[in-house]
Amino acid sequence: MPQQVVIIGAVALGPKAACRFKRLSPDSKVIMLDRGKRISYGGCGIPYYVSGEVSEVSALQATAFNMVRTPEFFHEVKDVDARPETEVTAIDRKAKTVTARHLLTGKEEAIPYDKLVIATGSSTRKLPIPGFDLPGVHAVNDLEAAEAIKNAVTAGSIGSVAIIGSGFIGLEMAVAFADMWGLDVTVIELFDQILPGVTSPTLAGMAHRHMEEKGVAFRLAEQVKAIEGDGKAQRVVTDKGVVEADMVIVSVGVTPNDALAKAAGLEVSPRGGIIVDEHMRTSDPDIYAGGDCVVVKNLVTDQPMFLPLGSMANRQGRVIGDNLAGGDSSFEGVVGSWCVKLFDLGAAGTGLTLASAKRAGIDAVSTHITAVDRAHFYPEHKLMSLELIAERGTKRVLGLQALGENGDAVVGKVNTVAAMLPGKPKVSAVSNVEVAYSPPFAAAMDILNTVGNVADNILSGKNAGIDVTEFGRLWKQSDLGDAYILDCREEIQGKPLVEKYPGRWHNIPQGQLRERLAEVPRDKNIVLMCNTGARSYEALITLAHMGFKQVVSVEGGMAAVGAAGIEV
Amino acid sequence: MPQQVVIIGAVALGPKAACRFKRLSPDSKVIMLDRGKRISYGGCGIPYYVSGEVSEVSALQATAFNMVRTPEFFHEVKDVDARPETEVTAIDRKAKTVTARHLLTGKEEAIPYDKLVIATGSSTRKLPIPGFDLPGVHAVNDLEAAEAIKNAVTAGSIGSVAIIGSGFIGLEMAVAFADMWGLDVTVIELFDQILPGVTSPTLAGMAHRHMEEKGVAFRLAEQVKAIEGDGKAQRVVTDKGVVEADMVIVSVGVTPNDALAKAAGLEVSPRGGIIVDEHMRTSDPDIYAGGDCVVVKNLVTDQPMFLPLGSMANRQGRVIGDNLAGGDSSFEGVVGSWCVKLFDLGAAGTGLTLASAKRAGIDAVSTHITAVDRAHFYPEHKLMSLELIAERGTKRVLGLQALGENGDAVVGKVNTVAAMLPGKPKVSAVSNVEVAYSPPFAAAMDILNTVGNVADNILSGKNAGIDVTEFGRLWKQSDLGDAYILDCREEIQGKPLVEKYPGRWHNIPQGQLRERLAEVPRDKNIVLMCNTGARSYEALITLAHMGFKQVVSVEGGMAAVGAAGIEV
Repeated sequence: MPQQVVIIGAVALGPKAACRFKRLSPDSKVIMLDRGKRISYGGCGIPYYVSGEVSEVSALQATAFNMVRTPEFFHEVKDVDARPETEVTAIDRKAKTVTARHLLTGKEEAIPYDKLVIATGSSTRKLPIPGFDLPGVHAVNDLEAAEAIKNAVTAGSIGSVAIIGSGFIGLEMAVAFADMWGLDVTVIELFDQILPGVTSPTLAGMAHRHMEEKGVAFRLAEQVKAIEGDGKAQRVVTDKGVVEADMVIVSVGVTPNDALAKAAGLEVSPRGGIIVDEHMRTSDPDIYAGGDCVVVKNLVTDQPMFLPLGSMANRQGRVIGDNLAGGDSSFEGVVGSWCVKLFDLGAAGTGLTLASAKRAGIDAVSTHITAVDRAHFYPEHKLMSLELIAERGTKRVLGLQALGENGDAVVGKVNTVAAMLPGKPKVSAVSNVEVAYSPPFAAAMDILNTVGNVADNILSGKNAGIDVTEFGRLWKQSDLGDAYILDCREEIQGKPLVEKYPGRWHNIPQGQLRERLAEVPRDKNIVLMCNTGARSYEALITLAHMGFKQVVSVEGGMAAVGAAGIEV
Repeated sequence: MPQQVVIIGAVALGPKAACRFKRLSPDSKVIMLDRGKRISYGGCGIPYYVSGEVSEVSALQATAFNMVRTPEFFHEVKDVDARPETEVTAIDRKAKTVTARHLLTGKEEAIPYDKLVIATGSSTRKLPIPGFDLPGVHAVNDLEAAEAIKNAVTAGSIGSVAIIGSGFIGLEMAVAFADMWGLDVTVIELFDQILPGVTSPTLAGMAHRHMEEKGVAFRLAEQVKAIEGDGKAQRVVTDKGVVEADMVIVSVGVTPNDALAKAAGLEVSPRGGIIVDEHMRTSDPDIYAGGDCVVVKNLVTDQPMFLPLGSMANRQGRVIGDNLAGGDSSFEGVVGSWCVKLFDLGAAGTGLTLASAKRAGIDAVSTHITAVDRAHFYPEHKLMSLELIAERGTKRVLGLQALGENGDAVVGKVNTVAAMLPGKPKVSAVSNVEVAYSPPFAAAMDILNTVGNVADNILSGKNAGIDVTEFGRLWKQSDLGDAYILDCREEIQGKPLVEKYPGRWHNIPQGQLRERLAEVPRDKNIVLMCNTGARSYEALITLAHMGFKQVVSVEGGMAAVGAAGIEV
């Protein structure tokens, strides 16, 4: 039976739901309203438009076959009535109408609906500080903002940029400005690591160091107090100093646009976001919602979660399209997969970090490895770092974070675990996951299987590790105290460090350890080091077997030490 | 309690099981016997040694930290008694001894065991043809064969090579000879496609074409009858002709070395391969077996399967090591993941192909898409082709095969589905699998989600496709008969083909289809074409809605037509 479906919002989820529904129910009518001037664009592409890798902003609105998704396109090709610059100001659930205001004329009309879809998205978070409204301060929230930023940069008047916030978009913008335009970029972050909340201090430290080498400056653990300037932004004042900048980008997250839903009496999370069931239906059975304006179930914690990502919007949009047409499609929830390209590095993750697991009240353990990402004899291998988070006791896998130079490979490892997470797998499932093997693409024991194995050893008490961040803190101290650093690589690698750091660094090759046990002090905390953590684990087994009580292995070994930029 | 463990075979599984067991049970004794001269090597690396990418054969025996895994290495570093050139001729299960014969001296001894591991691997299949034993005919079965091949090539006496068999190793060797040495290479295959059994005719055709462009010649559907030559191999004679060649590589698969186990009365599959349970235990509880000499359970069909891969050996070896030490580790089975690098292409797969599903008696459907592998506006995107195999009715996912220029990305997609397969997922799970999104690495609707969506449309009867191989057959005919090819791209793309092929090619842009319905003949079978299959699907929906009965869309569209090398 033909219906009239109204969709509020036409950026990501709205168009997807509209088109899917129309394919299933060609005789129905779809009216899609958006307060913006341009609709159906890939906002995630803005950093690549700013960098110049994408030359025209219209490319972000184009289909894969180069048709720009204008209202005319939706009308002609999709038979969808798309109306930009039209804001919905109210939903009347009893009358089943929405009040739409045309922004250019100010005229209002009531549009009836059989089914309604709320796809109002999110808004960039504002900072309650003086100077936030100065010219030259930009959020990265829509194509108009993108054009303003790019126009300023191409005009040549910008030499330096301060970026407030080191989440995905903040860092992608930093890369765009530094790599493509050669600008002086400073990233200011409130937390003491970049990518807070999504990755570990160790992996964040590696990414941080790489970006610094590429010329981006960072100021961590600094709170922005004001933006100052003479008629335009000229500097950012923090609690620790001043950053001079010709332009300021504010990228400190987004909040769900749930006010319209709330005003209509729909259930909304107290922490923000419209509440929907697995059919993406709100508390009103005739109203669906999805994308950045809803909360979804986290399939790892089984708790509600706000996860504003364009890919979610697309998948949810299809589910809504199905259900509008009388289908029974489900969106069970999310695991929280992400990835980001930072110059030559790819970083990615899925599920919980150690910190977020602990915040969720889970007794979690993190396992870090740094190793080559394919057969070590294959010439084009690169280092990859993986961190697997698992629950102590149950050995349940909670998440994986990764970093490496072969970005596609990094993302592939994370996606593999992302696919497993909804099934609440054990660490042994990661040890045995049947990833494809061939020397140009993987090692015979894939790095993913290996991190599962190492985690299993740690959770079983057979291995005990400290991460490279902890090693770095120890190594920085002038007095190592009870710690005894024992390098179990061959002499050719270990001896130069013994000579460089007499009394601080010791070397017994792993193959000689059983014969040279007497050299290892029994009253010290032994910290074992090798190249990647493999031999130090073997040495740990030997020492534990010989009755040594306080022995740990540095996870990822010298490879991780190097990637983290710790001077040894 | 310390035990004596004897391991027969020291290439892949043997060393892994030995080392894992010794870490768990340092006081136990492990004796590892192998009839070969060199042990613990990565046989999968042989093509890269032959190509020269790996310069020394010892690199294939080296650890990631460049120590060569000699018997001395195993003794000193691993405390494992490794004995090469020692063949086990019999197992006495009652006495719990093996008879070991030293190949150099001919001396025999009985070695007692508490637990025994059979890791005898596989042997390359021989061809029962005249000339198979001629000098210059090589199998790719061990490092000695690898050295013989490379020595011949480096000596400069080889200008042409014939390779019999187009499986993984045959094709990798073809790449090595053609790419790195510039030799004339001809691959002879009994089946009518390359990579038979593991991928579809369409994807195989794309890989075939790419390799031809790189200079490799193929002779498909040809049976080798003899190898001829004057004191050495000079030509291969098939049922259809003669291939002149200075060297012949025979790579027609391997068979499990199960004779020793069979002679000892252990259960062996009638089709070859030792039978083991999920603990990798044979029918004798004191004897384990794993690697290339066993059959394992296929988790898609629940049937036994022979899957000789080095990665399997590594994962199974760890399970055996655990269980030798009294653990309770399981290897549940396999899904059959593989990957291979063919010049600039990566190819990979997991689970069943359409053909293997049909052979297993499953009513299966294949869905092919060819699309860009990341955000289409991101400059570095490449085409990727995916083929998802699913069961009609239940919509269960049976397998995925893939091909593309970004090999790591191809492998990542396959691994993601490989991780899901043991859980017997539905197509909707692929539609919703939460792969990470960022424009440099993926599209907002990931190609993997898309192939799930397209498969769902096909299985639900909303879409009907023909693959590009079928389109190619149709297009080759001089008379298209009832078929009416309708290009639903824009005029700029469609019109030149209408002019080139008057009466054979027709063009109505998808956006104009509803208005121009009268132009579409109702008495023909409409074959819809666009760039990737997306618009042709939309056009199919429109035509179906308007009562057209015989409409199909070409899966993958012109992108697949191009990749398959069909002249249009």
